[in-house]
Amino acid sequence: MNASDESLMTSPNATGRQEVAPRPVPEPARGASLEGRLLAKLLTRLGNPEIEFRLWTGERIAPEGCESLCQVRIPSRRALLAILADPQLRFPDAYSDGSIDIEGDLVRLLEAVYRAGSRAPAPSGLARLMAHVRRPHVNTLSGSRENIHHHYDIGNPFYSLWLGQTMAYTCAYYPTADTTLDAAQVAKMDHVCRKMRLRPGESVVEAGCGWGTLALHMARHYGVRVRAFNISREQVAYARERAEREGLAGQVEYVQDDYRNISGRYDAFVSVGMLEHVGVEHYEGLGEVITRSLGDNGRGLIHSIGRNYPAPLQPWIEKRIFPGAYPPSLGQMMRIFEPWDLSILDVENLRLHYAQTLRHWLELYEAASDRVEQMFDAKFVRMWRMYLAGSIAGFTTGTLQLFQVVFATRQNNDVPMTRTHLYAN
Amino acid sequence: MNASDESLMTSPNATGRQEVAPRPVPEPARGASLEGRLLAKLLTRLGNPEIEFRLWTGERIAPEGCESLCQVRIPSRRALLAILADPQLRFPDAYSDGSIDIEGDLVRLLEAVYRAGSRAPAPSGLARLMAHVRRPHVNTLSGSRENIHHHYDIGNPFYSLWLGQTMAYTCAYYPTADTTLDAAQVAKMDHVCRKMRLRPGESVVEAGCGWGTLALHMARHYGVRVRAFNISREQVAYARERAEREGLAGQVEYVQDDYRNISGRYDAFVSVGMLEHVGVEHYEGLGEVITRSLGDNGRGLIHSIGRNYPAPLQPWIEKRIFPGAYPPSLGQMMRIFEPWDLSILDVENLRLHYAQTLRHWLELYEAASDRVEQMFDAKFVRMWRMYLAGSIAGFTTGTLQLFQVVFATRQNNDVPMTRTHLYAN
Repeated sequence: MNASDESLMTSPNATGRQEVAPRPVPEPARGASLEGRLLAKLLTRLGNPEIEFRLWTGERIAPEGCESLCQVRIPSRRALLAILADPQLRFPDAYSDGSIDIEGDLVRLLEAVYRAGSRAPAPSGLARLMAHVRRPHVNTLSGSRENIHHHYDIGNPFYSLWLGQTMAYTCAYYPTADTTLDAAQVAKMDHVCRKMRLRPGESVVEAGCGWGTLALHMARHYGVRVRAFNISREQVAYARERAEREGLAGQVEYVQDDYRNISGRYDAFVSVGMLEHVGVEHYEGLGEVITRSLGDNGRGLIHSIGRNYPAPLQPWIEKRIFPGAYPPSLGQMMRIFEPWDLSILDVENLRLHYAQTLRHWLELYEAASDRVEQMFDAKFVRMWRMYLAGSIAGFTTGTLQLFQVVFATRQNNDVPMTRTHLYAN
Repeated sequence: MNASDESLMTSPNATGRQEVAPRPVPEPARGASLEGRLLAKLLTRLGNPEIEFRLWTGERIAPEGCESLCQVRIPSRRALLAILADPQLRFPDAYSDGSIDIEGDLVRLLEAVYRAGSRAPAPSGLARLMAHVRRPHVNTLSGSRENIHHHYDIGNPFYSLWLGQTMAYTCAYYPTADTTLDAAQVAKMDHVCRKMRLRPGESVVEAGCGWGTLALHMARHYGVRVRAFNISREQVAYARERAEREGLAGQVEYVQDDYRNISGRYDAFVSVGMLEHVGVEHYEGLGEVITRSLGDNGRGLIHSIGRNYPAPLQPWIEKRIFPGAYPPSLGQMMRIFEPWDLSILDVENLRLHYAQTLRHWLELYEAASDRVEQMFDAKFVRMWRMYLAGSIAGFTTGTLQLFQVVFATRQNNDVPMTRTHLYAN
């Protein structure tokens, strides 16, 4: 998984325990319409984000003293009523299908929503009911195949427009502020390999290998043998062709199968950007796969989008972009390791690196938007813009996190004493 | 807290799910006594550690092919029966009071127990019953005062015999294998300060400050103001006297009070070696203290002994050494942060550094054992030797971990992009 977005239009409060005074209720103009007052009420519930709304009635709805550079234009009663009924789903839908317009910087608008969201009171009864009615897509073996197919099999040519040379669809690592996207993706792969301390001749199993870039990098630059699993047909076809072309097919085997079917014994286990598709109820099972893959003396790394606390995935993202996806809290991630007596060696949070990666992707995406529209349609272009912009906002506001977790079997003392080697030139 | 020890004589199995074949049952000599057979049965339950036992009957009880360099001599039926009834408590007690003898390296013996323990089946009904009957000491405000008094107020002159110049009673940090204890304690303090990125003029609150060393180091070398809390009377008296002597009393205030009574607003929150005394049921409350201390834009660090999975503290340690103590799993530690929407930035596991710290302490302790015996008695000398040796074994076998967790408030983007600055010269 690459990036998902927490709230877009509403974000849950962590606990309800932080008592921060709500900001002033937006003041609709005198003689405001019923719709205007209902929108103002919704915005109060959302913590009064710094956004200006303009209605078809000519009304302006905004927090007192708002100097937002972003304006949402709602051109019809019908569009507003849809949003009011189910803002989490219908606001991004309305943007996608063009029934509302947004002027100004979409990322800033969504950041304003997220910032306000941390002060928001608990969601309304209706919102809770909607959350209950919606059932996320399940990750059984066949459910996972469908869920992954939905996102990753929409066409390699589409992804190659905006992922850069590496086709890596996960958070990059920026050693300096001016690192390019491609260089940052290579730096990320080296960071991962150094964290695992790969040595020539070792064997690695990779769970969820995307277009196969990391597997090739490990084989070429660290001299290891790799078996890489992925259930996306398109991605595996692409990866195999690439391994052949680059003369690495003897060192890297791509297996089109579910991580649950991993067999064999390896020195290291790595998974970058798959955990978001696993589902918390399967974490202990993933730990079992890791344990049987490593035996008594191995180590590994899991790289995943995460959260500060457990909460359901934003429903629009779950429905339109990533069916079955869920970014866990670090506490939830521990359900992978604790039942199997695996030791956590190192956790690094790279959320600001993901914001930067997504900025680079969005830039390439916008530059290619005409071609995307030719491949799909104008609605698709707006939908994916909303998803990428919302993901940036999620990471810059701390609504989303990116965790790299290094672990080892309990009695593995062949681990570096310090992390100095990660930062040596 | 400095170091505690997981099992000494029995360690619980993580899950009972890892099906590893048990090693051969020890073979008592032909015509073995009833006691010999009972001991053999206990050792089987413990996973057959590589230890040789000699009984008063002349019998040798050891796993098949055992080439242990450690021998336990049990000179009476009475001593053996006590151990058989409650090995977790009575084995270390029997060593302390001299009713059994151990020849060879005590650390290796305890490592053998821990290594075997990971393969051991679930504890017997009797052991479970004993664990249920024992109720750990509670950490109410007054309970904590008593618990802390029990360990930390037994005399500053005693601790100064073996903690080295810094009087830091927590895991040190060894940048290289030949770093001395004192240098490693200073390196640990710098590691902690760099992780928090302390800047001159900032304010820091410290929860559980021991003999005050870190607070003085932060003030002197990082130019910050520190309020440091501790409920140990002896430690606070020592720390205040030291701050006066070193001319830092204007920058560092030591408060003899519970962390729950921390007031005021600070740029950073730090706690090194206190969490083990807090109790999991108080973690959310600790998070509240952190949140109200930092406001919207702070960061901090918690350094604590931990575990790979939740399990009660070894009962002998809880009873004789550290009443009320509990080293949490990383998942349990998240109960501090998740309810308050705090972001985890960095986790580092320093367990092998704690093993090295403890080796240095034990060396100094052994060199001063005559003076310890003068201060207390021979039983005390053996009891604390058991505790230090057991702690080394806990860390070398991965039964215990040492976590440094760096965190920040959710929307704090003034955090370093990489960890390179920790490793710059």
